[in-house]
Amino acid sequence: MSKGTLIVYSGPSGVGKGTLLLPYLQAHPEAALSVSMTTRSPRPGERDGVEYYFVSKQRFDEEIGQGGLLEYAQYSGNYYGTPRRMVEEKIAQGKDVFLEIEVQGAMKIKQTFPEAVFIFVMPPSWEVLKKRLTGRGTEPPEVVGRRLAAAQDEIHMAEKYDYIIVNDDLEAAGKKLEAVVIAAKCEARRLQETVRQLGGMPSV
Amino acid sequence: MSKGTLIVYSGPSGVGKGTLLLPYLQAHPEAALSVSMTTRSPRPGERDGVEYYFVSKQRFDEEIGQGGLLEYAQYSGNYYGTPRRMVEEKIAQGKDVFLEIEVQGAMKIKQTFPEAVFIFVMPPSWEVLKKRLTGRGTEPPEVVGRRLAAAQDEIHMAEKYDYIIVNDDLEAAGKKLEAVVIAAKCEARRLQETVRQLGGMPSV
Repeated sequence: MSKGTLIVYSGPSGVGKGTLLLPYLQAHPEAALSVSMTTRSPRPGERDGVEYYFVSKQRFDEEIGQGGLLEYAQYSGNYYGTPRRMVEEKIAQGKDVFLEIEVQGAMKIKQTFPEAVFIFVMPPSWEVLKKRLTGRGTEPPEVVGRRLAAAQDEIHMAEKYDYIIVNDDLEAAGKKLEAVVIAAKCEARRLQETVRQLGGMPSV
Repeated sequence: MSKGTLIVYSGPSGVGKGTLLLPYLQAHPEAALSVSMTTRSPRPGERDGVEYYFVSKQRFDEEIGQGGLLEYAQYSGNYYGTPRRMVEEKIAQGKDVFLEIEVQGAMKIKQTFPEAVFIFVMPPSWEVLKKRLTGRGTEPPEVVGRRLAAAQDEIHMAEKYDYIIVNDDLEAAGKKLEAVVIAAKCEARRLQETVRQLGGMPSV
């Protein structure tokens, strides 16, 4: 059985990452979403092991000490990290694992897991992103302002990714996501072993 | 309207390049196959402007002199080249243009057209390729031997391509070809302008 692929999946808040990924995961039982570990408290409705693994700061520090996190970072006083074991186990089982993480974490993964595929979801325009963030109506304006500033920083990092999916239309973007996952497995850099084996055989 | 993509499409003789590409072209009227120019004589059934543009050596030299060929090469005493104008016109019209050429020509295109997508079609095994080449039964053994030797040289160059499609199963390989053409347009290196425009906008 061939190994699965680690897919690092990023994009600014409000771009529709989850809305794009959910139908993909439903249609592809061979793909899984990595569950992050966090020290923040669960919000109403969030379940341990589903949205996040909710752990104490002490436990989080132990994971760091044991090399149990592929990457971790701190936001607003809370820690977030990607448990290494679950990711490596699923990939060994042939599953494609999506890591939905922000750009700084993604760049750390690029160092430790260079064979991962890096996908960035991009808004079709600045106006659309602004409308989506303000349109939720659930956040105070200063939070929206901070997210827009963060979005600009993230978009500047998009060129470090392998693929950019512009989320202008959900169906079209979904087709692109499907295509990128298939095509990434055909990238020549991933198939060096195949080439080596065939190219080295006797020619007659 | 956005520009089309130049797709350089190679693989050893007998790998099934044409069998794989034909259904794609039939399903995608927005894609076209580039017609090469050659100084060799038409074989029975070959039509000028369909399989090749059949020209004299003098006319071929004039095209070279005018910079009218994206690449050209000589095989078995005949010249083969890719007319530049047809390719550039179709791409400007938003069409994806496939160039089915061998690896040496492909590497020349890589220098003049670095934004092209390079796809290599690979046999699933050496045995399968040998069987396909000998199974045709239309060529003397020494021709088959030469083609196998050429195949080995070509396969060594596969790592210079962007994508490798292993042609083990026609339907699976066809899906990979579909995916690669879509995904190649999502490659971050092709979307620098999109990133620049969005990243540069005011954040609030």
